[in-house]
Amino acid sequence: MEADLVIIGAGSGGYEAALYARRRGMKVILVELSPETVGGNCLNKGCIPSKFMRHGAYLIDKLSKMKQWGIFPTGYTFNFSHLKSERDKVIFTIRENFKKFAKTVNIPIVYGKGIVKDPHTVYVEGAGLTIKTRFILLATGSKPISVGKLLPDGRRILDTDQIWNIEKIPSRILIVGGGAVGVEFAYIFKNYGCKVTLVELRRRILPTDDIPEDSARYLGRKLRQIGVDIRTKTTVESYEEIPQGLQVKLTDGSELIVDLILLAIGRRPNTEGIGLEDAGVEKDERGFVKVDSYSRTTVPGVYACGDITSPLMLAHKAMYEGKVAVSHMLGENEWQRDPMIIPKIVYSALEVASVGLTEDQAEEEGYDVKVGVSSFVFNPKAMDDGENEGFVRIVVDEKSGKILGAHIVGPHAGELIHQVIHMIKGNLDIDMAVRSMYAHPSLSEAVGQSLSEIKYGSLTWTKR
Amino acid sequence: MEADLVIIGAGSGGYEAALYARRRGMKVILVELSPETVGGNCLNKGCIPSKFMRHGAYLIDKLSKMKQWGIFPTGYTFNFSHLKSERDKVIFTIRENFKKFAKTVNIPIVYGKGIVKDPHTVYVEGAGLTIKTRFILLATGSKPISVGKLLPDGRRILDTDQIWNIEKIPSRILIVGGGAVGVEFAYIFKNYGCKVTLVELRRRILPTDDIPEDSARYLGRKLRQIGVDIRTKTTVESYEEIPQGLQVKLTDGSELIVDLILLAIGRRPNTEGIGLEDAGVEKDERGFVKVDSYSRTTVPGVYACGDITSPLMLAHKAMYEGKVAVSHMLGENEWQRDPMIIPKIVYSALEVASVGLTEDQAEEEGYDVKVGVSSFVFNPKAMDDGENEGFVRIVVDEKSGKILGAHIVGPHAGELIHQVIHMIKGNLDIDMAVRSMYAHPSLSEAVGQSLSEIKYGSLTWTKR
Repeated sequence: MEADLVIIGAGSGGYEAALYARRRGMKVILVELSPETVGGNCLNKGCIPSKFMRHGAYLIDKLSKMKQWGIFPTGYTFNFSHLKSERDKVIFTIRENFKKFAKTVNIPIVYGKGIVKDPHTVYVEGAGLTIKTRFILLATGSKPISVGKLLPDGRRILDTDQIWNIEKIPSRILIVGGGAVGVEFAYIFKNYGCKVTLVELRRRILPTDDIPEDSARYLGRKLRQIGVDIRTKTTVESYEEIPQGLQVKLTDGSELIVDLILLAIGRRPNTEGIGLEDAGVEKDERGFVKVDSYSRTTVPGVYACGDITSPLMLAHKAMYEGKVAVSHMLGENEWQRDPMIIPKIVYSALEVASVGLTEDQAEEEGYDVKVGVSSFVFNPKAMDDGENEGFVRIVVDEKSGKILGAHIVGPHAGELIHQVIHMIKGNLDIDMAVRSMYAHPSLSEAVGQSLSEIKYGSLTWTKR
Repeated sequence: MEADLVIIGAGSGGYEAALYARRRGMKVILVELSPETVGGNCLNKGCIPSKFMRHGAYLIDKLSKMKQWGIFPTGYTFNFSHLKSERDKVIFTIRENFKKFAKTVNIPIVYGKGIVKDPHTVYVEGAGLTIKTRFILLATGSKPISVGKLLPDGRRILDTDQIWNIEKIPSRILIVGGGAVGVEFAYIFKNYGCKVTLVELRRRILPTDDIPEDSARYLGRKLRQIGVDIRTKTTVESYEEIPQGLQVKLTDGSELIVDLILLAIGRRPNTEGIGLEDAGVEKDERGFVKVDSYSRTTVPGVYACGDITSPLMLAHKAMYEGKVAVSHMLGENEWQRDPMIIPKIVYSALEVASVGLTEDQAEEEGYDVKVGVSSFVFNPKAMDDGENEGFVRIVVDEKSGKILGAHIVGPHAGELIHQVIHMIKGNLDIDMAVRSMYAHPSLSEAVGQSLSEIKYGSLTWTKR
């Protein structure tokens, strides 16, 4: 078997890169572990099923607020197995469409474990197949980690691969880890009627530098308001199985009894047993495959994308890096990875979206930082929709007028952030952005308003 | 009394221009008919209350679909007066905030009818006040029109000023006019339990050149699917009041009995009795105030914005034109009105958003037109939200790579369109836009995909 490009891993990055390469005329072969894992973690055990369940949680939220529009629901019954089967139907539909489409555009998927034999040879274990190829793209993804004593047993202690299999919503859950996954599940379980405790070892939820303190604090307040028990600087000290569930002792000295523990503490790259060492593909000290701005590894002809390249494990980052890699294979040099335009989006009790630099990061990099903030509280569209919470924060370099970052908390933040992504990508400065158009009424007005605040100062500062 | 700028009309355009001028250091006086009309048509009788009621209609829609997420509502009761009072509470809150804020930043609002005496003098009838000013901004808005025999009586035949006063949802309504307002009310009334007939004289709903046929057709199909009886090339032949309501004869020969007729056939500019003739402010043959790209009228020092300047009566257009005018008063020449970036957004059974040129318009203007289309049907985020209907259509000039327009039908189209507005404003070409980032899963991916289709061709065209 021969190809221009063999892609190991048909997750978000591998699949998107395959379609892009095919579209650009390359002969592509995808290698994936099994027909059930096509689509990777995002589709099968990550963003797609979690966003489905999150929409259900959002609907339950909406049910309780409908009276504002004259609608008084008399109640509802809840059927978890129906939720689950509908959720899995969405996954199945997307996965089967993926496969059908690959077939239509003539991208073979070979099932088995892809191993790099040399920079131009991939051996597929299981299929017993050797493929000769001009280029290789590594897109093998990641898997959940566990820490310390907390070992997932698939029964009482579940990791983010196992949580999808539960047969009912537990009465009491302890979520370990206050990152994106932890706060997403906290909202889902809480609204579906579960008592939720969330512990985070660091001093705040969403404890990464690329999400500002303000965003994390605003979401934390909202989660507490709906009844999630959040404990920062806290983790599990010990636990013991008792007839009623798990008796857990936390490091803050408190004890609680829960039915389940969900481990949402992070993931590690799938870089073992795929021949990287033999082929000479280098990894950094944290175990990630080293890549340059064209997604090239240290071995000519071998590229890598997605979760194996950095701890910022996001489906769209993988897709983007995959396309950058393919573009470079085709001899194009214009498309380089730009870390400034990768959005980080969290779907919890509110949507939290960040792109580019935070205020702190911009200051550290020596920019002349100016920040504009606009609240959704008095945004007319948000008021009409009863979702007037949150804010838009935009970070600009005052000297150059360059837009450095945006941090949005509130309704549809994950979509609204795109207008700032493209402003950053297109090097639009504040003058252009202020003079663009923002529909009225729209949520997007808040973007225009925070830009105006930077350009012209806060209205309340006006000289009388 | 003296000012740098007197603005006649405190609607969207006047109010936004006042804040902007104040922010830029000008001494501003707003003139408005009464304390109850501050905020103008959009706030009091237009976009704000209609979007509120539309959200209620959307929630009723959602109620019937919740079982997909395991949520089985047992029913609901409906209370129209509650809906109405909550709706009016939103209007009241926004209006009072407006006034409070104007006071805080020291913008006096003088109540009465503003009349231009000369280019530097405004007389406020009612207040009996003469104001000397350096500049005048006309922002007097528009009012509903009626045609032929259909005269609004405030009882059985209502215009869009009167529809807000109804005390219950009618059982049967005839909406005359299939433009933005007509299709918005069709969705609202239908979902709140009313039998809706919609007649439109022209051959399609949304019958304006700036919204493509495809968008209108897609929305029309959806409205029919939920049970709205749409009749194009049809209007009212005659009607007669009978005990059960109004007996209406349509031009298609059919007859129907309804409780109410809503006239949604258009609006005309408020240009009479405000001294334009005496001051020498010229109007065009359709009665609109003539303005140039800086929003200047034919009289130096007198500017105009919003509904009085063109039939494209949109709140954000007014706000934008008002700011362009103020910017020019301050001696700046860089900000000119750009008709290419004005979004047209309709909130009906689906959101319909358009910006820039349609395919037809682009061809007429001689561009080398290429169109990319991406459907929401298989968009993963839209599937998760159960809102996977509609499409993104992007129009590009193939020769220059310039993005000419975007036409979106589907979930949150009114927000998604902003990313293309800024691309057009910032002169981003297709290469830049394709290489930008689109989060996964997100609705915005559909924007990236239609751009990719233009750049690299449809995937199914790939050579095998």
